[in-house]
Amino acid sequence: MSPARLAVIGVGSIGGSFARALRAAGAVREVVGFGLDRADLERARALGVIDAIAPDPAAAVAGRDLVVIAVPVGAVRDVLGAIAPSLPPAAIITDVGSVKTQVVADARAVLGAAFARFVPGHPIAGTERSGVDASDAAMFSGRRVLLTPVADTARGAVETVAAAWRLAGAHVEEMEPQRHDAILAATSHLPHVLAFAFVDCMLGIDESRATWRHSGGGFRDLSRIAASSVDMWHDILTANREPVLDCVDRYRSALGHFAQVLRSGDGSALRALLERARAARVAFSEDSAVGD
Amino acid sequence: MSPARLAVIGVGSIGGSFARALRAAGAVREVVGFGLDRADLERARALGVIDAIAPDPAAAVAGRDLVVIAVPVGAVRDVLGAIAPSLPPAAIITDVGSVKTQVVADARAVLGAAFARFVPGHPIAGTERSGVDASDAAMFSGRRVLLTPVADTARGAVETVAAAWRLAGAHVEEMEPQRHDAILAATSHLPHVLAFAFVDCMLGIDESRATWRHSGGGFRDLSRIAASSVDMWHDILTANREPVLDCVDRYRSALGHFAQVLRSGDGSALRALLERARAARVAFSEDSAVGD
Repeated sequence: MSPARLAVIGVGSIGGSFARALRAAGAVREVVGFGLDRADLERARALGVIDAIAPDPAAAVAGRDLVVIAVPVGAVRDVLGAIAPSLPPAAIITDVGSVKTQVVADARAVLGAAFARFVPGHPIAGTERSGVDASDAAMFSGRRVLLTPVADTARGAVETVAAAWRLAGAHVEEMEPQRHDAILAATSHLPHVLAFAFVDCMLGIDESRATWRHSGGGFRDLSRIAASSVDMWHDILTANREPVLDCVDRYRSALGHFAQVLRSGDGSALRALLERARAARVAFSEDSAVGD
Repeated sequence: MSPARLAVIGVGSIGGSFARALRAAGAVREVVGFGLDRADLERARALGVIDAIAPDPAAAVAGRDLVVIAVPVGAVRDVLGAIAPSLPPAAIITDVGSVKTQVVADARAVLGAAFARFVPGHPIAGTERSGVDASDAAMFSGRRVLLTPVADTARGAVETVAAAWRLAGAHVEEMEPQRHDAILAATSHLPHVLAFAFVDCMLGIDESRATWRHSGGGFRDLSRIAASSVDMWHDILTANREPVLDCVDRYRSALGHFAQVLRSGDGSALRALLERARAARVAFSEDSAVGD
């Protein structure tokens, strides 16, 4: 890939990290950014994440080779609609959203002929911290990026986006959007729902939070991701509602079963349940060469 | 406290760390250990965690000033029963169990007059790793230790145990056993139940675990503590069954409410729920000077 003229719409932790990683790899020659918060954009420019600030999304993409949309999933459709008229004919567009079925439908609805050059993507990375200050050139190093092209996505566009992610240090895999959303509902969206509900539950148990001081690693683990961005998670959970609700239903059954075993006083059944979960988790740790 | 002759019954990560921390502080002159697994005890001696291996619990406590019981909660009663006949008349006994009401009842039932010198304790520390290889002289540095003496516990005994924990670097607090158990049910036992149920649920979603590879930090956070010791957690959940079930019921309500809001499609209600949880978790991070 010759050094690209890159546009980043949404210069937060993921969009900023993508720009930084490509710059570190020598793969971009100029980065233009757009976002809703002018101060954040100034900060991104001061940090050297972007070279210039565009006045609007359409201006950001004019004359660009590669455009990355890194805004909350619910805002992707409006952004794509805004940039569609000024996209150069060869520009390749990608996104980083955590839900792919809806993004694909949105892109198809608003991009017209440019839809063939839109490559839906999702890096499995990031932290509960948001904003350009949380961006990092090494954010994607060793991480997986899932691309979810459809039948009418141009192969060349997929290969360009895959090459960019590989330059950022990521492992690239392709899968269907529906399969992506079902998997992520279980492995990522469900844990977030459980964490949000956990903190909500704790607020009910002690409004004053006085007892939280006594908490150890278990509390911290279960609650950490509840500090994640509200905008981002509102959009993810809304866009992937049915798969997420399906996982929540399964979880409620699993928890109900656990409570029933504990209530029954059947020590060997309880032990078997704990042992099965422990063995699976230990095996996962051993299997897992890649992951956050 | 003059250097004590210490007995450790159960030389795992917590018992071993207690011995190591007191030795590092110059507060012990000789440590005798007992445990069920001879190879583990040899390992503890090789690591310098203990100086000598006792053939049985009674022999371990003979001639000791301080005895720490660091076995799973369900085994504390048998251990106390075994050591009661050979406890020196001035020996102080403490434990590190995660449930205190049952331990207090067990100690009262089997210790006789020595019950006044039994100080129930619980360090809020440890990891999902178990065994003496996970022990660490700094395990309790900056952590909280909760002591739960009752009306007939001797003040001098409480003060001796508190002094030992302070030498190990811990902050010591006292509270009633029932209050301890209600708080820990929420802050520690509930998160563990949720983690065990989460892994169990994931096994149901994909038996092959092929999709787990796609998991990020959320999955790891929610599942890490499911790798904890089965023996330990069987005993904790059984000993604290009613407070834990009460928390699980509250959690199931909170999760049901969350699902209802998500299903309803009411975006502003969903956003309010996420915002409340996020704000509480962020405030907790800022408040929390001490914690794992």
